[in-house]
Amino acid sequence: MTTPPELLTSPSNPLIKALKSLERKKERAETGLFLAEGARIVGEGLARGWQAETVVIAADMADRPQIAALAREASKSGARVVMAPERLMSKITQKDNAQSVVAAFRQRHLAPADLTLPKDRAALYIALYEVRDPGNLGTILRTADCAGASGVILLGTCCDPYSFEAVRASMGSIFDVPFAAADFAAFDTWRKSKGLSLTAASVNGTLRHDAAPFGRPSIILMGNEQAGLPADVEAACDQLTLIPMRGGADSLNLAQATAIMIYEAWRQRGYA
Amino acid sequence: MTTPPELLTSPSNPLIKALKSLERKKERAETGLFLAEGARIVGEGLARGWQAETVVIAADMADRPQIAALAREASKSGARVVMAPERLMSKITQKDNAQSVVAAFRQRHLAPADLTLPKDRAALYIALYEVRDPGNLGTILRTADCAGASGVILLGTCCDPYSFEAVRASMGSIFDVPFAAADFAAFDTWRKSKGLSLTAASVNGTLRHDAAPFGRPSIILMGNEQAGLPADVEAACDQLTLIPMRGGADSLNLAQATAIMIYEAWRQRGYA
Repeated sequence: MTTPPELLTSPSNPLIKALKSLERKKERAETGLFLAEGARIVGEGLARGWQAETVVIAADMADRPQIAALAREASKSGARVVMAPERLMSKITQKDNAQSVVAAFRQRHLAPADLTLPKDRAALYIALYEVRDPGNLGTILRTADCAGASGVILLGTCCDPYSFEAVRASMGSIFDVPFAAADFAAFDTWRKSKGLSLTAASVNGTLRHDAAPFGRPSIILMGNEQAGLPADVEAACDQLTLIPMRGGADSLNLAQATAIMIYEAWRQRGYA
Repeated sequence: MTTPPELLTSPSNPLIKALKSLERKKERAETGLFLAEGARIVGEGLARGWQAETVVIAADMADRPQIAALAREASKSGARVVMAPERLMSKITQKDNAQSVVAAFRQRHLAPADLTLPKDRAALYIALYEVRDPGNLGTILRTADCAGASGVILLGTCCDPYSFEAVRASMGSIFDVPFAAADFAAFDTWRKSKGLSLTAASVNGTLRHDAAPFGRPSIILMGNEQAGLPADVEAACDQLTLIPMRGGADSLNLAQATAIMIYEAWRQRGYA
């Protein structure tokens, strides 16, 4: 028999406050933690070997077999497991409908050199230059995951992939898709050393996006939501491609444009 | 010489309150109005012949030539044009950074039969079955616009395309892309009478999405974010297609999946 997890009841409990504070970038940076919400997503994090520091279970769901199994698994992995009433769960995530489980996981910070290139297929990375919207970033992680991309690389000053909004939009893919961060110069050196072709989507592109040679080991490069890519970054690319748009149309949302690029690259590979 | 527009200064001014209240669906339904934000987007609405009832100009930007021209154009179209200080602009939109212009436009409600099929090319419509997230809906309008789709059709109980969030995500495309609403039965009768092939994206699809015959006049049908499409709707489709995903991946975001479908259809047409 195991002891049931401790039940927290006060909104001023330091642990509740610490978890809630992870909504702020400063607190995430200082603690090296981030919050994941929902039984499926927390379970995915544990299953993929991410280190959970704290797992909070909604008290009135603790008896459900799936939740109880998750609590045992978390505990075994070294996490502190506690229970809290629904109102405290909502307090942590600032959402009206409380989650059954939330967890603080330890962040990972990789450089491009830490990424393992696939051996059984041509690599396909997505590089995002100064992406600023966490919803876009999370959505792109999710799509990269669905298309089996090799990883995502954040260039320059991007939004934080560990923000509540980015993690939510990734729908668990934050745990699945390897991602790294670098400045452009270091990234460009790395990708050349690995023989990765660099194909940007740009309003300055002259090649249609589906004419890019995505059969070879490749990186798709996408620019900032407002400013796109700076001229020196475009100059360093092997191809500048243009996603077709009807005359007069404004522009695609960044995550939409990225999905179109990823699926075009994968199409050229026969979705293998 | 023209009289300068009236300057509103009180947050309890009935017009300011009425505009702010358009964030609520009930008020939008009762007034038949919706709010558009930003000089470019309001200008697009006017240019496309949408009827603005009220246009509010930020007082400290009213002298800028572009804003002054927009005010004149709005006034000429029959709109009531007023000025307000920045703090009242922020009050209307509930956003910290105030817009230079906001406007209440009259909603349009079309049925599929009101849509004009293109004469110079094969029609391509996007039908959304019970889409619930206004951000998804707005983003899909924007992407449909970029790809020159013929229109968007909302089926069943969808979120309101005229909500602040949907209009914002559409980035002005709400004024550009014709959209209609219908129940599925009426829609299905209409599309058959027009000879439009109905191709759904579904987890039950057996045909790969790029094998669908998008060269012919077509409708891409996308299901609800959680539940997808009901069985009877899937049974009515000409093709059920599957967007490839790596094994083990969860699912694509609805707007991402829709972008992939739209651009695949357009690719088959040589982006013409």
